[in-house]
Amino acid sequence: MRMSALAAEAGLPVATVKYYLREGLLHAGTATGATQAVYDEGHVRRLRMVRALVGPVGLSVQQARTVLDLVDEPGGDLYTTLGRAVGTLPPAAAPPGEASDPYPRARAALEALGQVYDPEFAAVAQLEGALAAAADAGLPIDAERLAAYGSAATDIAAFDLSRMPAEPHAAVAYTVLGTALYEPVLLALRRLAHQDAAVRRLAREE
Amino acid sequence: MRMSALAAEAGLPVATVKYYLREGLLHAGTATGATQAVYDEGHVRRLRMVRALVGPVGLSVQQARTVLDLVDEPGGDLYTTLGRAVGTLPPAAAPPGEASDPYPRARAALEALGQVYDPEFAAVAQLEGALAAAADAGLPIDAERLAAYGSAATDIAAFDLSRMPAEPHAAVAYTVLGTALYEPVLLALRRLAHQDAAVRRLAREE
Repeated sequence: MRMSALAAEAGLPVATVKYYLREGLLHAGTATGATQAVYDEGHVRRLRMVRALVGPVGLSVQQARTVLDLVDEPGGDLYTTLGRAVGTLPPAAAPPGEASDPYPRARAALEALGQVYDPEFAAVAQLEGALAAAADAGLPIDAERLAAYGSAATDIAAFDLSRMPAEPHAAVAYTVLGTALYEPVLLALRRLAHQDAAVRRLAREE
Repeated sequence: MRMSALAAEAGLPVATVKYYLREGLLHAGTATGATQAVYDEGHVRRLRMVRALVGPVGLSVQQARTVLDLVDEPGGDLYTTLGRAVGTLPPAAAPPGEASDPYPRARAALEALGQVYDPEFAAVAQLEGALAAAADAGLPIDAERLAAYGSAATDIAAFDLSRMPAEPHAAVAYTVLGTALYEPVLLALRRLAHQDAAVRRLAREE
């Protein structure tokens, strides 16, 4: 297909597609003349991914390119590549302090859950910040709540991982998009489950 | 305690405490002279809540006042009050379109989960947007994923509701802060559960 059809198919203005081409987020089409090229379904899929990364996921074009470089060249150590790819996602982790143990709350929580973790993984700092904010507001996460949330997170992660494609390029794309795009779904479902549970409890009390 | 001690206790500059007093987010202290007043632990707790709402929760001062007004006067219908309070939280819901069924994906999902819901509740629009973004990126939420996430959300909601204080003022404060402050904890735990599950899977495969 021509550029105009590609843009229409991806739901983007032609100027935006040209910009992604120049920035290297989209691979070139097959040249059919000095100034013309044709594009295929692979270009459409790639543009949908770029659109998601810079749209709902909220990455900058530079961050999107970092992710796409990892999708294109996952390298030999897929586990490290997945960690780096997820590490580009918001929220940006605060840099660790000078303390010898910069993430005391997160470490204690993950030890209580019996989980393996890499302290360099951005989500450790993210968990530390979230636990500190809850404690500061007078609603610290106690052992029972941690166990309840941790168990739910483990169930979700087992499902997510069971769907991860074996092929490395697809695995990186799935991990980044699935991590980021399914988070808002999960949060909305939690709020709606609160409402459902509250309605049922009020009905019982009446 | 004096204003300066109150500010220190709440971890806020004196100027910020005075601003919250003027804006009505904090109730006045007990006057001890023409220009002096004393404050108590109730003021400290209130300031911690205000700080959380305008800090990690990300509300504007105006939105925080809306929430605090509901905490102060929960009214007779607690269920409606909780819904309004949670509705002030980010993300802001997009206004519904002109369509007769503005939330087709969310409606189908909630029906599949067998959940009671109020279509006016902001989380319905939030779920619709999240489901649409995932589908647009080529990773639609299928029935199995919905069931897995819905089941985890239901478990979390049951725990959250089991801890809700019976006293209405406290119930509103708990619901708003617990909804917002525990969301980042849950998302960080999911990312860390992914990492734990991936490490365990790789260890089995080696």
